[in-house]
Amino acid sequence: MFSQEMYDLGAQPSVIREIFEYGKARKAAIGADKVFDFSLGNPSVPAPPIVNETIKKLCDTMVSTELHGYTSAIGDTGVRQSIADYLNRTHGTHFSSTNFYMTAGAAASLSITFKALTEPDDEIILFAPFFPEYSVFAKAAGATPVIVKCREGDLQIDFAALESAVSTHTKAVVVNSPNNPSGVVLSEETILELCAFLERKQKEYDKPIFLISDEPYRELVYGDVKVPYLTKYYDNTIVCYSFSKSLSLPGDRIGYILVPDEVAHSSEIYKAVCGAGRALGYVCAPSLFQFLIPACLGHTGDISAYQHNRDLLMNAFAEDGFQVAKPDGAFYLFLKSPIADAKAFCEKAKEFELLLVPSDSFGFPGYVRVSYCVATDMIERSLPAFKKLAESYGLV
Amino acid sequence: MFSQEMYDLGAQPSVIREIFEYGKARKAAIGADKVFDFSLGNPSVPAPPIVNETIKKLCDTMVSTELHGYTSAIGDTGVRQSIADYLNRTHGTHFSSTNFYMTAGAAASLSITFKALTEPDDEIILFAPFFPEYSVFAKAAGATPVIVKCREGDLQIDFAALESAVSTHTKAVVVNSPNNPSGVVLSEETILELCAFLERKQKEYDKPIFLISDEPYRELVYGDVKVPYLTKYYDNTIVCYSFSKSLSLPGDRIGYILVPDEVAHSSEIYKAVCGAGRALGYVCAPSLFQFLIPACLGHTGDISAYQHNRDLLMNAFAEDGFQVAKPDGAFYLFLKSPIADAKAFCEKAKEFELLLVPSDSFGFPGYVRVSYCVATDMIERSLPAFKKLAESYGLV
Repeated sequence: MFSQEMYDLGAQPSVIREIFEYGKARKAAIGADKVFDFSLGNPSVPAPPIVNETIKKLCDTMVSTELHGYTSAIGDTGVRQSIADYLNRTHGTHFSSTNFYMTAGAAASLSITFKALTEPDDEIILFAPFFPEYSVFAKAAGATPVIVKCREGDLQIDFAALESAVSTHTKAVVVNSPNNPSGVVLSEETILELCAFLERKQKEYDKPIFLISDEPYRELVYGDVKVPYLTKYYDNTIVCYSFSKSLSLPGDRIGYILVPDEVAHSSEIYKAVCGAGRALGYVCAPSLFQFLIPACLGHTGDISAYQHNRDLLMNAFAEDGFQVAKPDGAFYLFLKSPIADAKAFCEKAKEFELLLVPSDSFGFPGYVRVSYCVATDMIERSLPAFKKLAESYGLV
Repeated sequence: MFSQEMYDLGAQPSVIREIFEYGKARKAAIGADKVFDFSLGNPSVPAPPIVNETIKKLCDTMVSTELHGYTSAIGDTGVRQSIADYLNRTHGTHFSSTNFYMTAGAAASLSITFKALTEPDDEIILFAPFFPEYSVFAKAAGATPVIVKCREGDLQIDFAALESAVSTHTKAVVVNSPNNPSGVVLSEETILELCAFLERKQKEYDKPIFLISDEPYRELVYGDVKVPYLTKYYDNTIVCYSFSKSLSLPGDRIGYILVPDEVAHSSEIYKAVCGAGRALGYVCAPSLFQFLIPACLGHTGDISAYQHNRDLLMNAFAEDGFQVAKPDGAFYLFLKSPIADAKAFCEKAKEFELLLVPSDSFGFPGYVRVSYCVATDMIERSLPAFKKLAESYGLV
């Protein structure tokens, strides 16, 4: 009648969605200002002014059939070159337009990349905690996701666990730094060790292992934290990027896949990316949003608002006795549940009108995700509730 | 190393792309005004003014985090309701927002629908001539495409051929009217016969057979031609729509899937559509373009330009002695090659600087596609070349 697998995927209750619905009902019942919703990962700062300014300018100046017409499937050449130039200026790389394939955002970038790479019996290694859709995209591509838990505490890579998980079936390893759901940035030390590990395994198995870097949060880091640019550390790196978070336009769906020349069989893999894009029904990335990008490179929404939110919460959590993984980027905190059962902890939090996401669906039980892409005044009003929650567990 | 299947798909030379590259080189060599390029299906009329007006207004009036934020995966409720209301007013249907799933255009609509429906061993029937990507999307979903050639001459459905092709494995039948590449509109008589045929087969096999209506060209019809609204003729109809052609914004990727309540297991199929959208990496249809739609329903680009182009060519072709399938819609003519080998005919046409697409890749050899979404003055200048081409075959 229909695909049972697709039905299951569509009918699957989403934890975040359920919390969203609960929050909506609760806000209606007791007033929106009384509910403290930390469940959603939707940017809360507006797009930088240059976004709407450029959209309007494009409407006024570009020929309609070009602005709204098909670009080639790989994306407009000028747009791709502008991204190459920007990255080269910023990171000292040497990309050209031909290394880029424009996509409809990070989910498209990952789906297409997994599909382009996957052969029968392939496995893709995911580090937990991870964005749950990784697993959906890997399975849809025909690969088996293999989960490797990060170290408790700092959530850096656990190399002993990675050693046990990697095999001749390993096609790729996915890193996401800054991380959703934890906000953790992989240190340069971790990256160096990971790349050395992968080089060794490539030699041992006599085959490439690809490092897929999903980095929509690259620009969202605080203080003097650096996010290493991975193509400079490991040749077989493929970058999946999205402008969703940096430019605060997650709904508009624009990003890219970067296949550097140094990647083994790079031109064949680029063609496989083109083929996968075709097979998945992507004709071209949304054209108006492609043409928007050159003017916006290097711009972001007001990230200082996120940093302020993070600092407010981190200070409060320290006072309350909560433990939090070191949060250097994105707009998430990963707070350790004072009890083993994070779902029960989230239920308890609801008694104080705090909406948090249990970490089980991120493959790393015992924590909750606190999304701080919210209004600062909501955070300020929520702090007494967090204190009461801590008190109820005797933390303070 | 990578998926051979995806590589083959990405590396496959596209006939249209090759003609495009040839045309580019030829224009550089002899001057753009000397080459008559009828190879591309990119709308040549600008988007109606309301498109850019609305985009600018949305930028000025809508809150950034809503305009550019995620909508729910199925699309914004208000947008979906506005489409339901428009179709109900126009066609006397009774849809509601819950029947619609917003997509990134027709290719996404079809890919998602095929993926949602396909079970092991399923077949999807395609009527030739057809848009070549149908076959790519069907195979990517795991279905086997089964090709049924239309009748020579009027290109209506050949029911004897359909009878031989349909089987217990048939999951769906795809119709595309007005048709790419032929411009032919299926008559109401054909639709009635098709629906009666499918009803009979559903009973015989005791299972639903879905009629998938791919209709991006619905609004592009000329004279008093009517395109029957298929959900009113057959319960198990799923509509795949795109605003690409009617609003002249093919690059921006916006459309929908309509699963009426009358469809067997409609709520399960709707969920399978949601699951397939997820599996293919579609998070939500581009949000700004979703919000654009309510203001633009019922608007189109200047279709009269296409009609004028069609009439110019049809009159000339009649004088030249060319045979053409009755072209009631879209912006394509399907011209019968005077020799069996349409590729050789296209090569001959190049001698007169005419760029035409041989019909082999549309599954219906012996014809050429003439895309008339081009500047009228190019058509006027091309007519002597068509006459000479006809003369070279002794048609005049």
